[in-house]
Amino acid sequence: MIRAYAASEPGGELRPYEYDPGPLGAHDVEIDVEYCGICHSDLSMLNNEWGMTQYPFVPGHEVAGRIAAMGEHVSKFAIGDRVGLGWHSAYCNECSSCMAGDQNLCDAVQGTIVGRHGGFADKVRAQASAVVALPDDLPSETAGPLFCGGVTVFNPLLQYDLKPTARVGVIGIGGLGHMALQFLNAWGCEVTAFTSSAAKHAEALELGAHRILDSHDKEALKASAGYFDMILSTVNVALNWGAYMKTLAPKGRLHFVGAVMEPVKVNIMAMMMGQRSLSASPVGSPAVIEQMLSFAVRHGIQPQTELYAMEDVNDAIRHLEHGSPRYRVVLKC
Amino acid sequence: MIRAYAASEPGGELRPYEYDPGPLGAHDVEIDVEYCGICHSDLSMLNNEWGMTQYPFVPGHEVAGRIAAMGEHVSKFAIGDRVGLGWHSAYCNECSSCMAGDQNLCDAVQGTIVGRHGGFADKVRAQASAVVALPDDLPSETAGPLFCGGVTVFNPLLQYDLKPTARVGVIGIGGLGHMALQFLNAWGCEVTAFTSSAAKHAEALELGAHRILDSHDKEALKASAGYFDMILSTVNVALNWGAYMKTLAPKGRLHFVGAVMEPVKVNIMAMMMGQRSLSASPVGSPAVIEQMLSFAVRHGIQPQTELYAMEDVNDAIRHLEHGSPRYRVVLKC
Repeated sequence: MIRAYAASEPGGELRPYEYDPGPLGAHDVEIDVEYCGICHSDLSMLNNEWGMTQYPFVPGHEVAGRIAAMGEHVSKFAIGDRVGLGWHSAYCNECSSCMAGDQNLCDAVQGTIVGRHGGFADKVRAQASAVVALPDDLPSETAGPLFCGGVTVFNPLLQYDLKPTARVGVIGIGGLGHMALQFLNAWGCEVTAFTSSAAKHAEALELGAHRILDSHDKEALKASAGYFDMILSTVNVALNWGAYMKTLAPKGRLHFVGAVMEPVKVNIMAMMMGQRSLSASPVGSPAVIEQMLSFAVRHGIQPQTELYAMEDVNDAIRHLEHGSPRYRVVLKC
Repeated sequence: MIRAYAASEPGGELRPYEYDPGPLGAHDVEIDVEYCGICHSDLSMLNNEWGMTQYPFVPGHEVAGRIAAMGEHVSKFAIGDRVGLGWHSAYCNECSSCMAGDQNLCDAVQGTIVGRHGGFADKVRAQASAVVALPDDLPSETAGPLFCGGVTVFNPLLQYDLKPTARVGVIGIGGLGHMALQFLNAWGCEVTAFTSSAAKHAEALELGAHRILDSHDKEALKASAGYFDMILSTVNVALNWGAYMKTLAPKGRLHFVGAVMEPVKVNIMAMMMGQRSLSASPVGSPAVIEQMLSFAVRHGIQPQTELYAMEDVNDAIRHLEHGSPRYRVVLKC
């Protein structure tokens, strides 16, 4: 039996919940959860904002732990190996995207908490191909958030061949954004943090931003017309996207990694004159996660976390929902 | 004096109009116009749809002709050289975009018919850097449309490193689209023509399309879900862009070269799941125009044109506006 925390209805309190996962699949592994980050998408799923939550619902998709059991066809791990698991926990491994190494774009991809039980538990299962080993120098305590929030902001730098000469802006200095600042600084870029929170100015500079732009200051936005080669939006709320589009340099890209539900209206003529792009991407493939982990170790990049005991999961969720955590909340088993 | 055809008000008839261009600029050339294509943007400017037309207005920005005079600092041409001129007729040659070879994205770029007099005339002037020599094997009669419509659809293939293995769709089989089909076929791609005009099916196949997709057939669009690596939209009307977005393969791009004035609404979540992009670009740089001309000669690509005498310019405009020319209307001086 796996001992988890589950909600029985949208927005419901998480309560202890035991389930029998059945026999371990031949290509799957079982992970002893040591730590599990809480991501905004755990909240969105908990509240069934995307209409695809199944109850009882066990959140948790930023897992760091150890291999506890392996299916008969799994050979890449040994029992006790330190590993991580993110948003995706299984791929078809047959479609064009999988074959091209873009497993995160697999049509039949399975989400760790979509129709499956996640990592707010003592154990979690996943296909071995979706599980990535932790490098020796990466502490388990802070590794979890890299597997969803981290790779989500790291992946676009690789996907779009971002050059270290680029000027990059990050919208939203929170769970994702605070990792984006660190990655971009280490990538060699000129990094601007867009934030309306004065409290975060000094922190953003410490995390790697070279410049702060108050996103509520319309004049400051205007003064940055034509400036950025890339803007990474990590927020999930509607902003004045047209104003941000104008801050893009020729060939600039406004890239969404935050799950904005409202349609975004774009002015084609404004994009055309500067050959600008708008794009969006989800997490990253296992190979990209592996590259990110090496990069993070080499550059001393870690998520800043606040630790809660797993049994205090409801307090931790309230803190993420209503507080202003610095920056990622992590549960300890 | 230059003898041109000008409108004195929005949508007005073109009438003979003479003007004195003054002394020739040191970096400019004067071109004896032999042929000049008519582009939809000539109509948009004639009707002041973009709010930037100055009257008297001389349209014409798809010029093929010969060098008639050169400013003192121009050395790259000789009198009598066959050349072409497109949408842009001067660059600042100093800004970052110009220095990077992206003169078409220059902030201070001058349009051939924006605050200047265009090619519906016996002569037209432009900065030498915006004028490109015609290869020997390229007939002047059909060269003009390559300089605006042609490079507009050719440029994105270069800008986005389109691979010959790509599946590409073209929306709108008209002045731009009929050149796009030819370029894409020669580029090695699998080419689909989106058209609702049954009359154009056979023609599209002859121009280079491998497949036809009736854009009014909702079921056919649905059946193409996840298919295209790139869709080039050459139309300037609002379509159901969400439906086209769904036909994009993972990492696919919906690219606009047609001047759509209505805001385009995009669903970020739908783009995100497949790492899709939306982008737009204007014409191309002189270096790209030169590459396009060589490519066109090598592959026997030419615009299909209908020829009118310059003095019949109003008939020609009416034909473009209300008829269904195959495919580009060209005026002969």
